[in-house]
Amino acid sequence: MGVDIVLGGSASAYLARKVAERLGVEFAVLETRKFPDGETYVRVPIDVAGRKVALVQSMYRTPNEYLAEFLLASKTLKDLGASEIIAVIPYLPYMRQDSRFKPGEALSAKIVAELMEWCEVSTLITVDLHLHRFRSPSELFRVRVRNLTAAGELAKAAVEEFSLKPPLIVGPDEEAEQWARIAAEAVNAEYIVLRKERSSDEEVRVMGAADVTGRDVLIIDDIVSTGGTLAETARLLKAVGAPRVYAACTHALLVSGAEAKLYAAGIDAFIATDSVPNPYAIVSIAPLVAEALREV
Amino acid sequence: MGVDIVLGGSASAYLARKVAERLGVEFAVLETRKFPDGETYVRVPIDVAGRKVALVQSMYRTPNEYLAEFLLASKTLKDLGASEIIAVIPYLPYMRQDSRFKPGEALSAKIVAELMEWCEVSTLITVDLHLHRFRSPSELFRVRVRNLTAAGELAKAAVEEFSLKPPLIVGPDEEAEQWARIAAEAVNAEYIVLRKERSSDEEVRVMGAADVTGRDVLIIDDIVSTGGTLAETARLLKAVGAPRVYAACTHALLVSGAEAKLYAAGIDAFIATDSVPNPYAIVSIAPLVAEALREV
Amino acid sequence: MGVDIVLGGSASAYLARKVAERLGVEFAVLETRKFPDGETYVRVPIDVAGRKVALVQSMYRTPNEYLAEFLLASKTLKDLGASEIIAVIPYLPYMRQDSRFKPGEALSAKIVAELMEWCEVSTLITVDLHLHRFRSPSELFRVRVRNLTAAGELAKAAVEEFSLKPPLIVGPDEEAEQWARIAAEAVNAEYIVLRKERSSDEEVRVMGAADVTGRDVLIIDDIVSTGGTLAETARLLKAVGAPRVYAACTHALLVSGAEAKLYAAGIDAFIATDSVPNPYAIVSIAPLVAEALREV
Amino acid sequence: MGVDIVLGGSASAYLARKVAERLGVEFAVLETRKFPDGETYVRVPIDVAGRKVALVQSMYRTPNEYLAEFLLASKTLKDLGASEIIAVIPYLPYMRQDSRFKPGEALSAKIVAELMEWCEVSTLITVDLHLHRFRSPSELFRVRVRNLTAAGELAKAAVEEFSLKPPLIVGPDEEAEQWARIAAEAVNAEYIVLRKERSSDEEVRVMGAADVTGRDVLIIDDIVSTGGTLAETARLLKAVGAPRVYAACTHALLVSGAEAKLYAAGIDAFIATDSVPNPYAIVSIAPLVAEALREV
Repeated sequence: MGVDIVLGGSASAYLARKVAERLGVEFAVLETRKFPDGETYVRVPIDVAGRKVALVQSMYRTPNEYLAEFLLASKTLKDLGASEIIAVIPYLPYMRQDSRFKPGEALSAKIVAELMEWCEVSTLITVDLHLHRFRSPSELFRVRVRNLTAAGELAKAAVEEFSLKPPLIVGPDEEAEQWARIAAEAVNAEYIVLRKERSSDEEVRVMGAADVTGRDVLIIDDIVSTGGTLAETARLLKAVGAPRVYAACTHALLVSGAEAKLYAAGIDAFIATDSVPNPYAIVSIAPLVAEALREV
Repeated sequence: MGVDIVLGGSASAYLARKVAERLGVEFAVLETRKFPDGETYVRVPIDVAGRKVALVQSMYRTPNEYLAEFLLASKTLKDLGASEIIAVIPYLPYMRQDSRFKPGEALSAKIVAELMEWCEVSTLITVDLHLHRFRSPSELFRVRVRNLTAAGELAKAAVEEFSLKPPLIVGPDEEAEQWARIAAEAVNAEYIVLRKERSSDEEVRVMGAADVTGRDVLIIDDIVSTGGTLAETARLLKAVGAPRVYAACTHALLVSGAEAKLYAAGIDAFIATDSVPNPYAIVSIAPLVAEALREV
Repeated sequence: MGVDIVLGGSASAYLARKVAERLGVEFAVLETRKFPDGETYVRVPIDVAGRKVALVQSMYRTPNEYLAEFLLASKTLKDLGASEIIAVIPYLPYMRQDSRFKPGEALSAKIVAELMEWCEVSTLITVDLHLHRFRSPSELFRVRVRNLTAAGELAKAAVEEFSLKPPLIVGPDEEAEQWARIAAEAVNAEYIVLRKERSSDEEVRVMGAADVTGRDVLIIDDIVSTGGTLAETARLLKAVGAPRVYAACTHALLVSGAEAKLYAAGIDAFIATDSVPNPYAIVSIAPLVAEALREV
Repeated sequence: MGVDIVLGGSASAYLARKVAERLGVEFAVLETRKFPDGETYVRVPIDVAGRKVALVQSMYRTPNEYLAEFLLASKTLKDLGASEIIAVIPYLPYMRQDSRFKPGEALSAKIVAELMEWCEVSTLITVDLHLHRFRSPSELFRVRVRNLTAAGELAKAAVEEFSLKPPLIVGPDEEAEQWARIAAEAVNAEYIVLRKERSSDEEVRVMGAADVTGRDVLIIDDIVSTGGTLAETARLLKAVGAPRVYAACTHALLVSGAEAKLYAAGIDAFIATDSVPNPYAIVSIAPLVAEALREV
């Protein structure tokens, strides 16, 4: 059980290092660079023959670049004789494109899932995978998937970091219920989930009966990309009387002026994990990942 | 024989259009865009069920982006019931990484070749494929490959465009001999090939016996990337007395200040094909590609 | 009169070359490259002391990169003793941001105009400058501006390239009237201009009385960026009976899936100038620019 | 004294927030986004008329993008009536290009310094500015400059984080002496500085007399970009007997496979500040910046 080597891709060297230290196993980082013509150079710098390798590569912000590096690396590991490849992809992109809204659209989630198989990955370890239309990763993936969650650790860290009185945990929409529930259990708090409703032409987020007056509120979600959902949720909570609104997300992509939106919406503070490099990474997912690697 | 539809990817819509017009078959362009989080959206905008589709996507300058789009598109075509997919990838990247100079390096050429198979491509049509250590594409690819050459058309266009007297065709190194020979035949001219030699510490390009005094010289090569090889070759030819040095390349990537290097080396003029968008694209590869598609 | 040197930036080496050839003056290209940390290296490779230099740099697709290179280059030219700098910026970005739609917005057009002054440019030569709220460049710029137009050349090239019967020239909106009028004069044709109207919630483009039945239609505009305006205009013209719709634009930025939109809207063919590298560049602006440089 | 508003640019919102909290003053983030054509949209979301604004924007990895945003923002602040602009640019790019190694090169350091003046900045606050050929920022800048240092805080944090016995502080070259000295004083330790020497053809780093056997070694430097200097230094220290080598840098750009190089060279651990977002940011420069803002 466990792995022999933790190998970091260029996206996640720091994380691979932390995981390897916890496991007390060999550690290395892929040698990579971009050629001037845009091609990616990949070299495995250690002997992997006959060994079980965890390849750690989160695929954030430039997912096509990191995906290309990953497939070059995993095929090379096999070619060099690695006995097994465990893919550790904390943030796995393309998972939201899992059904056709218009005819002819790529089912990118399914294609990326199949690509993992082509990469000869035996097990995929990921964190807070965004599954819309599927109940379990096994409906989408044919490789084994361990879908870890950071929601509990995030809630605990938020309570401590912000010195929160038992907060009201809020999931911005039905899909976030899974994370809100886990977060609430972790800190022994209540949770509510907002609903999206169509009123005339627009979609609006509406609340149920919860009274937020005078309460610390902690929004929990899996991904913050452009910040729209989180900002809208915070604005609503402030409007109905929440004095302080905090937020915690697993994957802080924070693209396209997201931080400006969050602060403009009155979010008092924000924390995230280190699944993606970001300046709000208070919680490391390394312990979760190390634990999962011990069990594969 | 032939294809039913020519479908352009975002890298090659203009080329797909020209090819479809020559063939007189249905034409469309993939609907694509980038999400703010860096993911690529792909939609096939036409009915492809039961039809034979040529998917045209040259993969230049941002090869990982165009490769990701290609694999999303080809898998989607299959999913939508296309009977056969012919990949038209005029510039196919990663082909130079075809052996290990240092242990552990990715054999990217082989991996990309295998990826074509995973993409369920039946035939790959490409142009002036850079094969270093392989005599024929079939040593690398398991899908059928048609490797077209634009060397003859380039030589003819250069002679006409620059009003050259029968020029001396020059291949910058041994690998370029194949193109120099074809170019020379096309315009009924002589050709020579330079050799690389190590003198003390540096590699230098050396010439054989050809006398260039007073002759128009035309350098032929497959790819111009940063422009180093072409600039060095031009400088040498000028040094030994060539009054005018012209150059023609199939794939004009022109990255990292390449044009400055070419002009500083005294190249009098330069032409290329439209396999890659570039401001020197005098020769279209559309007729070559159309002809090859007629025969698949 | 005229300039002593035409110096191409990394964005426009090909164009600088054509202009220099027409003028019969010295030509060079800035030596540039990107450092791994993202900084731009700039070197002027020729002696410019006491000489009048035309610095040619169109600023398309990555305008901030090309603007940074431009300001490093122009300041360096002055530092090296150039007697005068004529900026040739065929596509000048940021010109559409010329008033505040919301309080606090940057008046980027004005700031970029002022930056030209800081760059010690004596005259700015540009092509089909997009001026919204200003009648003349002199309201925005304190440096002298020569605003050239390619509309006439584009119309003539389209008529020839597509073998058009006297076409109906169409401007997609009021701002395009200036180019539609010039294009119509150049080919001795009629022109109409569409209007934008708000009907309930949406803005729609509406036509006047012109009958397009059985007529070749040629849309003329200054910029095609994401292709939305052009696609919408083509769709409308097809809907009211135009059998064939052609389009011609000066600056073909063609970003974010623009080509897919144009073809999906039924545009039969498209041409542009070489102000921006693009695969539809039939018309060169080099003669226009050379002429203007002769007169400065 | 002090400022009225701390305004974060898109590169440094998190840092601006921390600084504003320490100062207890108004805080906001610039509203920014990229248009599909590559232009940057900038909006100041608060009233700044008659107020003294600290504009916080570190310029890392995509310096031209962040510089363009900065100049649009600062000019807009002035236009909106801000009484004074304090530029807080923790990582200021282009400072290494401060003399001509080849004729014709841009003195980019000087040009960027002058640009600050054009931006109507009254004071520039920066951190561990890389000044090669100048003794003081005032030789380069005409605006007032406060050049803060994080070397002391980094050394203290490294000693605590890694539980170091009194370490030997090492500066990789003469330029790093300034930081090595400060670091050594902060933790009451010795320091040495390596020299670069030319032996035959190559430049090598050589050590003086210090005995590293059995000692914890802490390398201190200002910037880690591709990681070459740090890796080479670590390798040398290991070669002469250092059992453990740690490193601390102010600005962790970490581009082009830097982390792979650091780990391959045997660096046991690495820390940095948050001047640039990076996964090793243990030390915040917010207290330093806040203190300096109190005094302007």
